[in-house]
Amino acid sequence: MTHAHALPDVRALCFDVFGTVVDWHGSIAAEVQRLRLPVDGSAFALAWRAGYQPAMQQVRSGALPWTNIDGLHRRILDGLLAEHGIAMDEAARADLNRIWHRLQPWPDSVAGLLRLKRRYTLTTLSNGNLSLLVAMAKFGGLPWDAVLTAEFFHHYKPDPEVYLGAARLLDLAPEQVMLVAAHPSDLRAAAACGLRTAYVARPLERGPGGAMERWTPGEFDLAVDSFEALAATLGLP
Amino acid sequence: MTHAHALPDVRALCFDVFGTVVDWHGSIAAEVQRLRLPVDGSAFALAWRAGYQPAMQQVRSGALPWTNIDGLHRRILDGLLAEHGIAMDEAARADLNRIWHRLQPWPDSVAGLLRLKRRYTLTTLSNGNLSLLVAMAKFGGLPWDAVLTAEFFHHYKPDPEVYLGAARLLDLAPEQVMLVAAHPSDLRAAAACGLRTAYVARPLERGPGGAMERWTPGEFDLAVDSFEALAATLGLP
Repeated sequence: MTHAHALPDVRALCFDVFGTVVDWHGSIAAEVQRLRLPVDGSAFALAWRAGYQPAMQQVRSGALPWTNIDGLHRRILDGLLAEHGIAMDEAARADLNRIWHRLQPWPDSVAGLLRLKRRYTLTTLSNGNLSLLVAMAKFGGLPWDAVLTAEFFHHYKPDPEVYLGAARLLDLAPEQVMLVAAHPSDLRAAAACGLRTAYVARPLERGPGGAMERWTPGEFDLAVDSFEALAATLGLP
Repeated sequence: MTHAHALPDVRALCFDVFGTVVDWHGSIAAEVQRLRLPVDGSAFALAWRAGYQPAMQQVRSGALPWTNIDGLHRRILDGLLAEHGIAMDEAARADLNRIWHRLQPWPDSVAGLLRLKRRYTLTTLSNGNLSLLVAMAKFGGLPWDAVLTAEFFHHYKPDPEVYLGAARLLDLAPEQVMLVAAHPSDLRAAAACGLRTAYVARPLERGPGGAMERWTPGEFDLAVDSFEALAATLGLP
């Protein structure tokens, strides 16, 4: 691991959001339970999220025209409800789909971001669409300096256009930008574009006992287990 | 003027920035004085700003490829320095050009935005580039929920792509979005796209005694003389 003092040039921290900043699994499982849907909340959350990569791949391949994440989440949701034989009217479906706008931050997220904001420009760098990310930030009190999204580039991560587009909009060289993410695959794609990388372990992303993507110690510039630890590692009080 | 209670559907307030939120004239005049340039600070500020519309028109016409505002400001600055026979090295020019990143908010701006933020999504809707708007927000403490810029659309206001693009990114109908601006021409272009409009008088935008664009009472949904007054008119405590 590079020590933090070897990263003096980093000016902006760009954050993956789903799983890194907010707890999609816990938030969705709780909502499914609250609505008393006849399914297991955890399994439903995992299935909804599992549809996400294939849906983005359909956009990437051109099988689907550009569709934002609200639209992809809705397609997956409609499929899941049909699969489980759950009847739900349009208004209820639209509201359930917006649970992705109301995901709870991890307990350290807001406090850590506020510390990091004293020195760095903080942005999202998410596949979530702008309106989703703005609603989530207002819901959870996430103090972004700017909301950057795949939607600006009509490319989803891990396409290089997203990482390089963020650096360009921030008027920074790639090495002045650090991606903060709980997903090694996202970090590897950012590193391939020249960005710095900070891995944040989120062992509960898929619920208690859920699997985490493997990575190799030393693979990323920094590796921490919370945003508070990231702030401390970067020397912020 | 429509009364505020007739605007229940407005969800987002999008703000013009130069002149509406921040005092470009006073900030630039003070910087020119601080640097002891052999020119009148007010006249220099006005001349710099006067180059802005023709420069955007060169982009609009295709005479220039897409160039962001930092780039346009720099072209105008280089011309002004040459005209006045002022020698300045590259680093000093780059720093002076970034005065546009460090413009002072009007005295009511931050307090008014904080009040408005309790109910509305607040965004910039500026011809300024993202990195400029982010730096300015950090400098002045402007609490945007998102930074929206002409740069996302490769069109400058008053092109309709900017107003309609903002509504699309916010996932709102045009009539759910209100442009707040000190410039009638900007507001008229927004209204033509279906947005709501709030005029904020900024009589000092061009310095004491400077000219303001004319407008007709009743032309805009709201007309106020500060962001505090806008918050009060919209019924915010």
